[in-house]
Amino acid sequence: MKTDKIIRTPYPNSEKVYIDGKLHDIKVAMRKVKLTDTVNIVNGERVISHNDDVYIYDTSGPYTDPSIKIDLEKGLPRLREKWITERNDVEQLPEITSEYGRSRLADKTLDHLRFEHIQRPYRAKAGKNITQMYYARQGIITPEMEYVSIRENMQNEKLGIKSYITPEFVRDEIAAGRAVLPANINHPESEPMIIGRNFLVKINTNLGNSATTSGIEEEVDKAVWSCRWGGDTLMDLSTGENIHETREWIIRNCPVPVGTVPIYQTLEKVNGKVEDLNWEIFKDTLIEQCEQGVDYFTIHAGIRLKNISLSQKRLTGIVSRGGSIMSKWCTLYNRESFLYEHFGDICDILSRYDVAISLGDGLRPGSIYDANDEAQFAELDTLGELVQKAWKKNVQAFIEGPGHVPMHKIKENMDRQISACHDAPFYTLGPLTTDIAPGYDHITSAIGAAQIGWLGTAMLCYVTPKEHLGLPDKEDVRTGVISYKIAAHAADLAKGHPGAQIRDNALSKARYEFRWKDQFNLSLDPERALEYYKAGHHTDGEYCTMCGPNFCAMKLSRDLKDCIL
Amino acid sequence: MKTDKIIRTPYPNSEKVYIDGKLHDIKVAMRKVKLTDTVNIVNGERVISHNDDVYIYDTSGPYTDPSIKIDLEKGLPRLREKWITERNDVEQLPEITSEYGRSRLADKTLDHLRFEHIQRPYRAKAGKNITQMYYARQGIITPEMEYVSIRENMQNEKLGIKSYITPEFVRDEIAAGRAVLPANINHPESEPMIIGRNFLVKINTNLGNSATTSGIEEEVDKAVWSCRWGGDTLMDLSTGENIHETREWIIRNCPVPVGTVPIYQTLEKVNGKVEDLNWEIFKDTLIEQCEQGVDYFTIHAGIRLKNISLSQKRLTGIVSRGGSIMSKWCTLYNRESFLYEHFGDICDILSRYDVAISLGDGLRPGSIYDANDEAQFAELDTLGELVQKAWKKNVQAFIEGPGHVPMHKIKENMDRQISACHDAPFYTLGPLTTDIAPGYDHITSAIGAAQIGWLGTAMLCYVTPKEHLGLPDKEDVRTGVISYKIAAHAADLAKGHPGAQIRDNALSKARYEFRWKDQFNLSLDPERALEYYKAGHHTDGEYCTMCGPNFCAMKLSRDLKDCIL
Repeated sequence: MKTDKIIRTPYPNSEKVYIDGKLHDIKVAMRKVKLTDTVNIVNGERVISHNDDVYIYDTSGPYTDPSIKIDLEKGLPRLREKWITERNDVEQLPEITSEYGRSRLADKTLDHLRFEHIQRPYRAKAGKNITQMYYARQGIITPEMEYVSIRENMQNEKLGIKSYITPEFVRDEIAAGRAVLPANINHPESEPMIIGRNFLVKINTNLGNSATTSGIEEEVDKAVWSCRWGGDTLMDLSTGENIHETREWIIRNCPVPVGTVPIYQTLEKVNGKVEDLNWEIFKDTLIEQCEQGVDYFTIHAGIRLKNISLSQKRLTGIVSRGGSIMSKWCTLYNRESFLYEHFGDICDILSRYDVAISLGDGLRPGSIYDANDEAQFAELDTLGELVQKAWKKNVQAFIEGPGHVPMHKIKENMDRQISACHDAPFYTLGPLTTDIAPGYDHITSAIGAAQIGWLGTAMLCYVTPKEHLGLPDKEDVRTGVISYKIAAHAADLAKGHPGAQIRDNALSKARYEFRWKDQFNLSLDPERALEYYKAGHHTDGEYCTMCGPNFCAMKLSRDLKDCIL
Repeated sequence: MKTDKIIRTPYPNSEKVYIDGKLHDIKVAMRKVKLTDTVNIVNGERVISHNDDVYIYDTSGPYTDPSIKIDLEKGLPRLREKWITERNDVEQLPEITSEYGRSRLADKTLDHLRFEHIQRPYRAKAGKNITQMYYARQGIITPEMEYVSIRENMQNEKLGIKSYITPEFVRDEIAAGRAVLPANINHPESEPMIIGRNFLVKINTNLGNSATTSGIEEEVDKAVWSCRWGGDTLMDLSTGENIHETREWIIRNCPVPVGTVPIYQTLEKVNGKVEDLNWEIFKDTLIEQCEQGVDYFTIHAGIRLKNISLSQKRLTGIVSRGGSIMSKWCTLYNRESFLYEHFGDICDILSRYDVAISLGDGLRPGSIYDANDEAQFAELDTLGELVQKAWKKNVQAFIEGPGHVPMHKIKENMDRQISACHDAPFYTLGPLTTDIAPGYDHITSAIGAAQIGWLGTAMLCYVTPKEHLGLPDKEDVRTGVISYKIAAHAADLAKGHPGAQIRDNALSKARYEFRWKDQFNLSLDPERALEYYKAGHHTDGEYCTMCGPNFCAMKLSRDLKDCIL
């Protein structure tokens, strides 16, 4: 594993800073962007004024802190381990408890693929509740909760911006089920973050190989890359061989929560034969992944036998992989799925590791034609029923959403989700607002994502330009992440998230004052902005090749200021 | 001028077809996409079913009809010339009447740059009204109106879709001022199109060089390119030398309406000295461009002396080039602008050629901070006053809009525009929903454009990835156009434009049935989709490298159909 291939350059003119907690001994990582001074000429004199540092929510983890030594073979520092063990409610197991995990560990032929420093897993002590939801319901503010309260505020109080996001507020939102703090006790490398509609809108990136595509090293590199650009969580959707080993490498080196869809690996274990799927193999897969440190599982337990036939009226049937697998299973055996029947057991397992459930929308529409149909909403009602079952067991849960939805049908999705799912966070794929742009579905979907984020969706699953066409490469990941950071930020502005506009204001001020570098450094992709600027610009003065000196509105407008003064 | 450099390949599996008019002897160009058959295996038998051709609104002009000979040096066929002359209300002038136009024509040093086949211009006969608005108010349905009524319907009646868009409806919308049909009698090469909120949402592309960037050949190439991808109109925003000659080449070879901002050239004529601008030079510029065939002018007549100081409270002042020029002029002379004072004269000139007015928003906000402020809305009220003056003289008019606007402030823009401007069409730049993504402003703005299009904006001015950073190259133009076709189409779907969804349905059906080529041929950018597909795919069967054979939801879902059957 070549650590030196990982890009660790800090963002330009930026510094990783750590803000101390007040309740707990924690240090919250943030990116501070230093700006240059504003220079005005007033009555022939240079008048210099200072521009405040801008603090930016930072998902890149220790990689952008040059003072931290990174070794992919050893994994990231275990930030949360002390917080977890000090609660005295977990135990370190003598060994891995999943059969599959043990068999892989015993298989010497896998040694060359294996992450070397596998720790023995943690699990709740018998009779103990260890989920963030449980703690919140007990009135406890955990270090994780304080961390996110500081993180969400981005030092706004320095600018006099008062925020409602206090540690108490974080706790109360988690207790109410309105927010999820994914925090598997076996992924202590992860920096706490929160998914809920009263917080910054988050984005997830989907990674993972299929068949013979990318190898382990490439997947780890993509994971770090996705965090670098702004991915708040990532899902490893690998299918094919060695996904157990790949996942270990990713989790050990990943500073953000990791999600998976366990039915994928389960299907691999039965050689792709849907008819051979059963609860025992699925259960072992859950335990295997819980003990590796997966922070949330997408589980398509909402597929009900009675609803499957509804999808037959559709133009594009079932487009969710998990949904189609479970629908086939239910139809073959003419019975309810083992995910639905064993949902209580699933929650019991997850609660021991504080793994969150992302209730998959197996019947999400795959085309504009199928949006908001009976199949989709019937499943949503089931998901609402399941989320309450999860909460009874203190399991954190959120709900996955579509898919393909034209703009005029987006609001109904959000409203029905809030009402049917009792305020549980919504996590949507896009939605794509038209079907006609393969190759540009990061855009068709960013349009929908920004709107549904504004309306209340807590996390947006990114879509890359390769959607519908192939697996994303690194450039696609970057494009997908930036497109979704845009959608999420546009939603934060529209929702009036405290302080969200500080970055826009600082960037626009820099733009107006021709502080080009400050403008770029404050942008979502400083490298791209600088590259485009360099391609077109031959001057560094107070105008550019876009308009030339006579036609620069900003220059004329600033001159005007002088006229009026 | 190298005609053979122009890309003329028709779209894949597509054919240019012409639909006959019923009221007039016209042929309306459209693109017909032929689809392959659907093949299903039912009880071991191959069952073949036919898929209907899909008709697509086509802005590419004669370039994609292989049967038409194109010679850039001669210009496009003069489609509308007969319609215009048969109305017997225009005369062909013995010579160009603008002083500047005459002086350029007489300048032998420009011969090498000049379009050779310049025609003598048309103008209304004395006492005659010749605008589409005038005709519409007289109850006349012109060939142009019938053309757009057929064009907007894309052969939907073949599929039994009834549309409200009849020739009578087109006429009535133009008469009411709710729609504009840009149709300068000196640009007969242009295929009629309509801008109004009860029609398909249109997009404009901005082209043009500044300083020493692109030459004439490159600009003509970009113009044809922008039409190829779907630009409904284009604005030539060139500044610098030889813009008169460049414009002639563009108009003669452009199948879509062309707009300009005449104050730019006027400023060039006074060597960039704002203080030397005056009505006489501006008036001569208007006549020069009317006689070349410009279809609409952006005129910043809404800048009022009393409102300029409102912009001083802003973060980013005045970001419209025209707005900043006129504000400076007004401030220097402490008087109302010649555009405002001579607005009646401007309308008189434009009415003789049927040039439409696009009332520029010189005080549009250039940052989220400045959105929906007093300066912006004060100007909007003035534009509402001016549009009524234009209509009194039968001049078609529409209103330009912002700019930078966060999502929650978009609706107020649309609502106030409709009310303040008496239903005149709205033509917006974006709006950009955040400031923080230079390099990706095609996306920040497509998010806003889709929403404002849905709410009622008739035409969206595209934004390319180079916005704020440099002038767009051809790839940027393509990306900008496709991003805005997405926004416009998403808006058409949300508005329920008759038949807009046919293309989505046909594409999604092809996707579900693994008719990959049909899927790509129906997409906005067939080349890009195919390119991405080829990059990732090693099979041509019923699954792909995204999921592999076991995880293909579409395959599983189709299998399921067989199970249930």
